[in-house]
Amino acid sequence: MGKLKEVDVKNTFQIRTDLAIEARELIQESQEKKEDEPNGVKVETQEGDCYTLTRVSIINDEGSKAMGKPKGEYITIESQKLKENAVDCHEEIIKLLAEQLRKLAKTKEDDCILVAGLGNWNITPDALGPKVISRILVTRHLQGSLPVEIEGTVRPVAAISPGVMGLTGIETGEIIKGLVEKVKPTLLIAIDALAARRSSRINATIQMSDTGVAPGAGVGNKRMMLSQETLGIPVIAIGVPTVVDAATLVNDTMDRILASMIEQTKKGTDFYRMLQDLEEEEKYTMITEILDPYTENMFVTPKEVDAVIDRLSNIIANGINIALHPGITMEDISKYS
Amino acid sequence: MGKLKEVDVKNTFQIRTDLAIEARELIQESQEKKEDEPNGVKVETQEGDCYTLTRVSIINDEGSKAMGKPKGEYITIESQKLKENAVDCHEEIIKLLAEQLRKLAKTKEDDCILVAGLGNWNITPDALGPKVISRILVTRHLQGSLPVEIEGTVRPVAAISPGVMGLTGIETGEIIKGLVEKVKPTLLIAIDALAARRSSRINATIQMSDTGVAPGAGVGNKRMMLSQETLGIPVIAIGVPTVVDAATLVNDTMDRILASMIEQTKKGTDFYRMLQDLEEEEKYTMITEILDPYTENMFVTPKEVDAVIDRLSNIIANGINIALHPGITMEDISKYS
Amino acid sequence: MGKLKEVDVKNTFQIRTDLAIEARELIQESQEKKEDEPNGVKVETQEGDCYTLTRVSIINDEGSKAMGKPKGEYITIESQKLKENAVDCHEEIIKLLAEQLRKLAKTKEDDCILVAGLGNWNITPDALGPKVISRILVTRHLQGSLPVEIEGTVRPVAAISPGVMGLTGIETGEIIKGLVEKVKPTLLIAIDALAARRSSRINATIQMSDTGVAPGAGVGNKRMMLSQETLGIPVIAIGVPTVVDAATLVNDTMDRILASMIEQTKKGTDFYRMLQDLEEEEKYTMITEILDPYTENMFVTPKEVDAVIDRLSNIIANGINIALHPGITMEDISKYS
Amino acid sequence: MGKLKEVDVKNTFQIRTDLAIEARELIQESQEKKEDEPNGVKVETQEGDCYTLTRVSIINDEGSKAMGKPKGEYITIESQKLKENAVDCHEEIIKLLAEQLRKLAKTKEDDCILVAGLGNWNITPDALGPKVISRILVTRHLQGSLPVEIEGTVRPVAAISPGVMGLTGIETGEIIKGLVEKVKPTLLIAIDALAARRSSRINATIQMSDTGVAPGAGVGNKRMMLSQETLGIPVIAIGVPTVVDAATLVNDTMDRILASMIEQTKKGTDFYRMLQDLEEEEKYTMITEILDPYTENMFVTPKEVDAVIDRLSNIIANGINIALHPGITMEDISKYS
Repeated sequence: MGKLKEVDVKNTFQIRTDLAIEARELIQESQEKKEDEPNGVKVETQEGDCYTLTRVSIINDEGSKAMGKPKGEYITIESQKLKENAVDCHEEIIKLLAEQLRKLAKTKEDDCILVAGLGNWNITPDALGPKVISRILVTRHLQGSLPVEIEGTVRPVAAISPGVMGLTGIETGEIIKGLVEKVKPTLLIAIDALAARRSSRINATIQMSDTGVAPGAGVGNKRMMLSQETLGIPVIAIGVPTVVDAATLVNDTMDRILASMIEQTKKGTDFYRMLQDLEEEEKYTMITEILDPYTENMFVTPKEVDAVIDRLSNIIANGINIALHPGITMEDISKYS
Repeated sequence: MGKLKEVDVKNTFQIRTDLAIEARELIQESQEKKEDEPNGVKVETQEGDCYTLTRVSIINDEGSKAMGKPKGEYITIESQKLKENAVDCHEEIIKLLAEQLRKLAKTKEDDCILVAGLGNWNITPDALGPKVISRILVTRHLQGSLPVEIEGTVRPVAAISPGVMGLTGIETGEIIKGLVEKVKPTLLIAIDALAARRSSRINATIQMSDTGVAPGAGVGNKRMMLSQETLGIPVIAIGVPTVVDAATLVNDTMDRILASMIEQTKKGTDFYRMLQDLEEEEKYTMITEILDPYTENMFVTPKEVDAVIDRLSNIIANGINIALHPGITMEDISKYS
Repeated sequence: MGKLKEVDVKNTFQIRTDLAIEARELIQESQEKKEDEPNGVKVETQEGDCYTLTRVSIINDEGSKAMGKPKGEYITIESQKLKENAVDCHEEIIKLLAEQLRKLAKTKEDDCILVAGLGNWNITPDALGPKVISRILVTRHLQGSLPVEIEGTVRPVAAISPGVMGLTGIETGEIIKGLVEKVKPTLLIAIDALAARRSSRINATIQMSDTGVAPGAGVGNKRMMLSQETLGIPVIAIGVPTVVDAATLVNDTMDRILASMIEQTKKGTDFYRMLQDLEEEEKYTMITEILDPYTENMFVTPKEVDAVIDRLSNIIANGINIALHPGITMEDISKYS
Repeated sequence: MGKLKEVDVKNTFQIRTDLAIEARELIQESQEKKEDEPNGVKVETQEGDCYTLTRVSIINDEGSKAMGKPKGEYITIESQKLKENAVDCHEEIIKLLAEQLRKLAKTKEDDCILVAGLGNWNITPDALGPKVISRILVTRHLQGSLPVEIEGTVRPVAAISPGVMGLTGIETGEIIKGLVEKVKPTLLIAIDALAARRSSRINATIQMSDTGVAPGAGVGNKRMMLSQETLGIPVIAIGVPTVVDAATLVNDTMDRILASMIEQTKKGTDFYRMLQDLEEEEKYTMITEILDPYTENMFVTPKEVDAVIDRLSNIIANGINIALHPGITMEDISKYS
């Protein structure tokens, strides 16, 4: 069994996902007792009227190694309503997001916070970060010039969309580090689009974690991590999976088809063995050989992606605005958003 | 064989493709002699420095029924360079497009022509038509007021982006018919984004036909065709496949995987028979059952879709501009585009 | 006095304004008793919490000639809050707009209505019409397929953004006429950006009239009017002044400066006479000579024009949506807009 | 006369202009000998086929004080063709720009250069900087991974659009300083939209200087200058006036009207004296009183501003690309732009 697990952990890396709940799912699928949590990982769920919240805590190195992710908290809000024009549910999620973010942030009321929107504003599914930034209530430059009645209701907040390395020639981490040294915030909140394994999770999931983020991690290779270690301040990452890459989609569907074929086949027959063998030895080679080479640079995205990204960036920005500014409430948001 | 063919023709409709060359390919794949042309279909190809041109002529009803497409000419230009910033190749294709369009159009030099850009300008891969329209040299309103030196070098051209039924509440066919009755053009040229089966053809293929077009055909059901029959004037359709829908991608990849498995399996064994049976009886049910329901509304598209659609609309618009206006040459295009 | 009036009527045309309240203002300024209403013109005003509504009724040919506008009702809503993010006031104005539009429209509950957004979507201050269209609840294509619980709450509404003649080669009037013949609506509602004389009215004024509209009237010369006469159905025009042209701004400011100089100068002195003479004889020549020729194609617009046009198109679209669909209320609007 | 000059110098500041040639013009207008150059200022001009180049050198503190600008070189390229689709002239200007920029830059071939696009990408006339950035050939991140045949033809270039303080909460100067400390470039090139006094210069003038730039200087008050002093590296500023503010337009036109009236009036008459007095004492008060308060936040811009800004950003970006990268020529630009 040890060997199988290794293979699957390797698969975890091949099947691209940035979600802790999917990393956990992949481990569980490879286990005999599918319902067991991986060692070193603690999971709690909470059901709301229109959402499920899952808190995955990676508590030690074993958990971190199994999951392929740093130790820390990963809070995931799942709701198919995130994709729809469902105002009541969005309000519920904004409040939940604000509440969870406030707990995770642990800052004092007048600490300065920097919000960074990672990603490329020219590519719709990668534009979540920059779009959130455009809706953040930015106040750092107003300190000292605020009217008396507003003072005390807002804290200093700065916001930046640094662009992507392909457009700037500069690592996002370098830009943010330069900025952190000038602005000296107490906390960085970084927003990014993520990749997921399941198309059902696309635009229907918000993940928030206190473990930092590697900008453009899925795309290239070694990038400077944005984290407490590299920046010297805590980093909260908020992300939404907005794409499945086409190869992952095919691969994942194939897996499920094979699993279903194996289930329907009598154990012990030649065919059963063949399917078993196939899964482990040949499947990837076959898919790689057969899969159209042009699929490599393609991703899967819903038709109405522009509208959905707008909606999501509104939800996240308002969650952040309420969490950060003591005087801003849901009522202000529904009036002025 | 008869039965198999019927199944395949049905598949032709399930596997969504608007390309005549893919309809032909699907028929050939289902034949024993893969290289035979379907009855009633004539095919010629021509190789250029950076493109392949395929002329598929559907010459009788048998061909039309087999292909699932009306009788007429389907000219397809294929070039992977269409997606790239390859100016020399683009110039070659613009000239080719203009030449082929002029032959297909058979209009007199001062006939008025209406160009219609079908599709939804809010959804990038569906915005090809409206983007082409924005680059068409429109002159109909200038007739009578043109400077002497220009008169005779341009013909009357009008252009419209009618929008899609979901946005207007009106069938595109109705809008175009109302317009044709007012403007009284001699020819309609309709530009639309198409669906393809193979991701390699996405944004790498231009199809031009003289058989009309059904706006949004792939999306809903019965729509008013734009054709000689419905409008009373000839209709040339120009299209580019800009998406593969996610289910087609999975289905098509599965087919190729199964075909490869069958090939590697000894004929006559149980496993061979099982795969054969599977292909025909169970595959679709299985995929449909297993495929994530959220994949339905998803499509596969390259990351750099905005830039590529811009490039393609430039190529098509310039091909049309040169074909229609006697005094416009490639030189004007490279200077002023 | 007769001669002076003629001159002033001519000026009405030179000073470009599409607003009935400004046409009236110009006449009043030229009169000795500034507060008298022009003959054949009846005016009522109504003050709301955050707006002024002025109803100008041109009741006979004399009024029409003096005002340079067709007989009919001109309802103007003025509010500086239209430019701001003032949700409560916007809700009040949406309700007012819906109520006034319903009175003006006089249609039966299930009549089909066509809404047309005139103007050029590529030029922000001219994009009001197309932007309103993008927010109209379009239902004509759903008739027959609506769920039972919704049926009866919406009427058939179609919507179109026909583009401008410079882009289509076709007069907007021709496109609309072709469409009216196909769609056979009971009423046309046309949205357009207007020109005003006073920069204070820019984006702070909504005019609604039952007298039709001449698309692009200010730009070129004779255009086909959209009206009961040309289309055979009633036409309601809704517009917002979004620009002052630069020459009008200078001219209007000059007028006010000269008026103020005349006021401060003793009647009967040479200087007084000179200013008087100047105003009538030389002013226009002088401005025309001196005014920078490049100013001709320029217009004056506020910095935040994109955001303001978005807000205005939201207000107008929601006013129309509530007025047209029996089952849509302000509550639906604030939830789902 | 001394007093008059002081007043006029003050006016130089009220009349907002970022152009050295307009600062010079304003001084000359206030002088008795209009053609004399201000003390401490040296001017050379050069005529091309389609442009005028003016080199204003401010050589000492007296010149700097009179002009209200730092000592240094100000190179201005004027051409009405910049606004038009005039490819041949644009090529000439791109070459000129590259040549002048190379002289001003004085860097070694493999020095790293940072290009910063100042301004707000959401407001078209302020989006010049960010638009130029989107067309800069960025190569810093490719160093070490470039193919052999390209190595040596490009130098390391990074590019950033930092946004504006109202959107980030951070002074643009702070962001750039943080970045300069990380990236350690040898030179900063900063692109910004400028304000001019004459509408004829809008989008028809490119100014390049080696004296640094104050981001958003026209808008608010004290901002951190981007210059050798603040950043520790040389700064070249490239700008285009894209707006005239409405009050400046009226004021400037008024001045010319009054000047023309004075000219036509006999010296020594009461009227002459009155006009003279008016100019000095009352004009500003009068304009300020009479000018519509809503004009304050308005600016004057041409209708086709989007297309023109696109064209200008293309010209400037290509000028920079040729100047910076040893292996890039005009031919590459016309092929691949």
